Amino acid sequence: MISSSSLTPEVLEQAYGHRARECPSSNEQINLVFSQDRSFDLVELEQLLEAVGWSRRPMRRVRLALDHTLLKVGLWRHDPLFPRLVGFARCTGDGVLEATVWDVAIHPIYQGVGLGKHLMDYTLESLKEMGVKRVTLFADPGVVDFYERQGWTLEPDGHKCAFWYA
Amino acid sequence: MISSSSLTPEVLEQAYGHRARECPSSNEQINLVFSQDRSFDLVELEQLLEAVGWSRRPMRRVRLALDHTLLKVGLWRHDPLFPRLVGFARCTGDGVLEATVWDVAIHPIYQGVGLGKHLMDYTLESLKEMGVKRVTLFADPGVVDFYERQGWTLEPDGHKCAFWYA
Ligand SMILES: CC(C)(COP(=O)(O)OP(=O)(O)OC[C@H]1O[C@@H](n2cnc3c(N)ncnc32)[C@H](O)[C@@H]1OP(=O)(O)O)[C@@H](O)C(=O)NCCC(=O)NCCS
Ligand SMILES: CC(C)(COP(=O)(O)OP(=O)(O)OC[C@H]1O[C@@H](n2cnc3c(N)ncnc32)[C@H](O)[C@@H]1OP(=O)(O)O)[C@@H](O)C(=O)NCCC(=O)NCCS
Repeated sequence: MISSSSLTPEVLEQAYGHRARECPSSNEQINLVFSQDRSFDLVELEQLLEAVGWSRRPMRRVRLALDHTLLKVGLWRHDPLFPRLVGFARCTGDGVLEATVWDVAIHPIYQGVGLGKHLMDYTLESLKEMGVKRVTLFADPGVVDFYERQGWTLEPDGHKCAFWYA
Repeated sequence: MISSSSLTPEVLEQAYGHRARECPSSNEQINLVFSQDRSFDLVELEQLLEAVGWSRRPMRRVRLALDHTLLKVGLWRHDPLFPRLVGFARCTGDGVLEATVWDVAIHPIYQGVGLGKHLMDYTLESLKEMGVKRVTLFADPGVVDFYERQGWTLEPDGHKCAFWYA
């Protein structure tokens, strides 16, 4: 059992980097942490993304894409030895005028208790700290409500129209 | 008068970089060139974007945004001494899985003769050469036709939905 006391500010910074922040958890036996700096095991990341139903992508390309990603957020279930990745989001963009959110995922066994919303909050706050002016994303039709409730505007609404080219 | 003969492969590479390419021009007295490498005068770039009706942005932020932009395409009207910027597009993204096109513009006096289409073709080919899998963009409602004719899919069409957060 992991007790909350194991997560001192020193441990937080050392294991997750200086921009890490605890994520509110509905289970007091579990410490959850947002990190921009803790590096990902690509196998663990792909397992998470597969668990939410996305198809596997070539590891080499995922690594290259992550290397050129503006902001990578991991949501970790803290453990002193083996933190586990339970959520993820990443943003591309220029970090000033534009950012675009991709690959938002909460592991199925952690879904439905508010973590997705906390993940988006942390991600948007991190972009705001960078000074980004405008944030965009593309969502699957099944999660439109998830974003609308959090204040996102669905396009086209007469203001902007979104296109896709594959 | 600028004669076509002034644009040898050597001049092209020297003035516009090795990925430069001539753009078909309906006026044989004008040589037009796509370049990824020729650097922009930020004042000239903002004048172009203002000429198509966009509001001025702080120069320092534009410079920072360009520094963190994956692909910047300039369309230049060739002149041995003073090439003039007549078109522009840029893309953010990770260069592997995702890219997003922003700030597509052709100077009003050069519009309507196919240059916008050539600019998009050159931009998409450059992304393809990088190996980018998927390209997205947000368009003003007034230019939806421009993109649809070139094979872009307007979203949401039931497959993906686009969101905007400002
Ligand atoms: C979408 C996802 C990130 C949401 O994470 P989560 O932790 O389950 O969401 P939360 O518990 O924070 O939900 C916040 C709110 O959104 C709602 N919500 C969550 N998932 C939703 C969905 N799929 N559709 C509609 N509403 C949803 C919740 O009911 C909750 O509403 P409330 O504030 O009224 O209680 C998660 O379900 C997931 O990873 N899904 C699979 C991958 C995916 O589709 N990602 C989105 C990429 S476009
Ligand atoms: C949109 C823009 C880049 C198009 O450039 P352009 O050089 O005038 O376009 P082209 O001449 O290559 O046009 C290609 C085709 O699109 C059509 N088209 C061009 N502009 C259009 C518009 N605003 N709406 C609908 N169709 C348009 C043309 O009629 C042409 O059709 P055709 O193939 O049947 O002849 C240019 O008008 C521009 O800079 N506009 C202002 C900025 C802007 O809105 N940019 C888009 C950002 S979202």
